[in-house]
Amino acid sequence: MNIEDFRFVGRLPLFRGIPADDFAGFCRHAVVRHHAKRERVFLDGDVARHFYVVLSGWVATSRTSADGDETMFTVVERGKCLQLFPALLGKPYTAGGSVVSKEADVIAFDGARLRALLARNPALTEEVITYSFDEFREIESDLEAAKTRTATERVLDFILDQCPTTVGPATVQLPYEKTVLSGKLGMQPESLSRVLKKLRRAGVHVERDCVHVADVARLRTMALPCAV
Amino acid sequence: MNIEDFRFVGRLPLFRGIPADDFAGFCRHAVVRHHAKRERVFLDGDVARHFYVVLSGWVATSRTSADGDETMFTVVERGKCLQLFPALLGKPYTAGGSVVSKEADVIAFDGARLRALLARNPALTEEVITYSFDEFREIESDLEAAKTRTATERVLDFILDQCPTTVGPATVQLPYEKTVLSGKLGMQPESLSRVLKKLRRAGVHVERDCVHVADVARLRTMALPCAV
Repeated sequence: MNIEDFRFVGRLPLFRGIPADDFAGFCRHAVVRHHAKRERVFLDGDVARHFYVVLSGWVATSRTSADGDETMFTVVERGKCLQLFPALLGKPYTAGGSVVSKEADVIAFDGARLRALLARNPALTEEVITYSFDEFREIESDLEAAKTRTATERVLDFILDQCPTTVGPATVQLPYEKTVLSGKLGMQPESLSRVLKKLRRAGVHVERDCVHVADVARLRTMALPCAV
Repeated sequence: MNIEDFRFVGRLPLFRGIPADDFAGFCRHAVVRHHAKRERVFLDGDVARHFYVVLSGWVATSRTSADGDETMFTVVERGKCLQLFPALLGKPYTAGGSVVSKEADVIAFDGARLRALLARNPALTEEVITYSFDEFREIESDLEAAKTRTATERVLDFILDQCPTTVGPATVQLPYEKTVLSGKLGMQPESLSRVLKKLRRAGVHVERDCVHVADVARLRTMALPCAV
C-alpha cells in the first residue's frame, strides 16, 4: 500500500478508533490487489480471512442459489468496506464479490488482526457498531425498495439519486453496465430496457452509458407512487 | 423482571460475554412491558434509548414511507432482540415495532448501559459482532427472497419452513394473521389469498389459521423454481 492509499484508509470512519502505531502495523499486513473486470475478489462460502476496502472501480456482491438464481446485493465504490463481520469472526463470506468496472483496486485487510485490535480499543468497538448500524440501515432500505417499489419506481429512484441537480435538465453517466444496474435494482436486463424505453415519454433518453433527463423536477413528481 | 425472565435473558448469546455482577446490575434497569395487540413497542424515528427482547408473542417491525407505503421487515418471537444498534448509539430507531399477536411481553433494556459494559468487556464486543453477522445474514436472505423468489415461491418457502416433517402430511398453525403474513412475505393480502387458493391443487388447504399439507415432499418439489 502506498502512502496515498495509507492516508486514504486512515481517514475511513471504521478505522478512526485505532491508535496510529497500531494502525500502521495493521496496514503493513494489508495487500492491495489489482483486479480485471469480472474477476472474483472473494468467493461466497469461503472462510473469510480478509475483509476488503475498495480503492478504485466497482465491486458487486452477489449470491447464487442452489438452483442457479443470482441475486446481486450491492455495488460499491471507493472507500466502501466489504465482508467485515465474516472476517472478524473467521466465518464464511455471506456473498461473493466481483469486479463490475473495467478494473478495480481493492485492499485486503487481515480480519484476525483487526479482531485483536478490537479487544484493546473500545473506540474501535464504537466505530464497528456505527458501521453495523449504517450497513443495516442501508440493506433495510434496499429491502424496503425491493418489497414496495415497482421496477419503474426503482429505476426512477436510481436516476434521480445520480442527478447533480434538482431542477432543469441533467445528464447522468451510468456508473456501470446496464446488466449490472439491472441486477442491483433487482430486475432482469430486459425489464430494465423496457422501463427505460417507457421513460422516454417522461423525458429520459439513454445514449450508451449516458442518461439525459429533460427535466429533473418533472421526473421527481413521476417517482411518486402511482404516478407512472 | 422475574427470576425466570432473568434466567432466560441470561442465556441469550448476546449477553454471554457480560460478567454475572454486571449483568445483574444491567437487568435491574430493564423493564418488562406488557402490550396488547397492535400496540406500538417503539416508534420509527424516535431516538432510541432502549433496545428490546421479546419474551412472549410476536412483534413486527415496519416502516411507512412518506407516501404511506408500509414495508414490514420482520416478525420476531421469544428471544429475539430488536433495535440494538440504534440503542447502543443513541440514534433514531430504523423502523417501528408493534405487536401482531394477541398480546406480547417485551423487555426494554437501556442502550447506554450496555454501551458502558461494552467498553469494559471485550467478550461482549465479540457477541455484538456475532449478532451483527447473524442479523446481516438474515436480512440479506430476506433481500434475496424479495429479489428473486416469486410470491408463490415465498409462500411455499414459508409453509415448508413451518412443517414439522419432510414427508407425508402435515398441519401447520399460522403463527400470526394472514395480513401480517402477507406483509412479512412482501405481498398484498389479496395476493396471498390468490396464492393460497392456487396451492389447493398442490394439496395445500387453509382452514382458519391452520394450513394442511397433503404431502410435504411433493410440496418441496413445487418450491423449486419454475415448478409453479
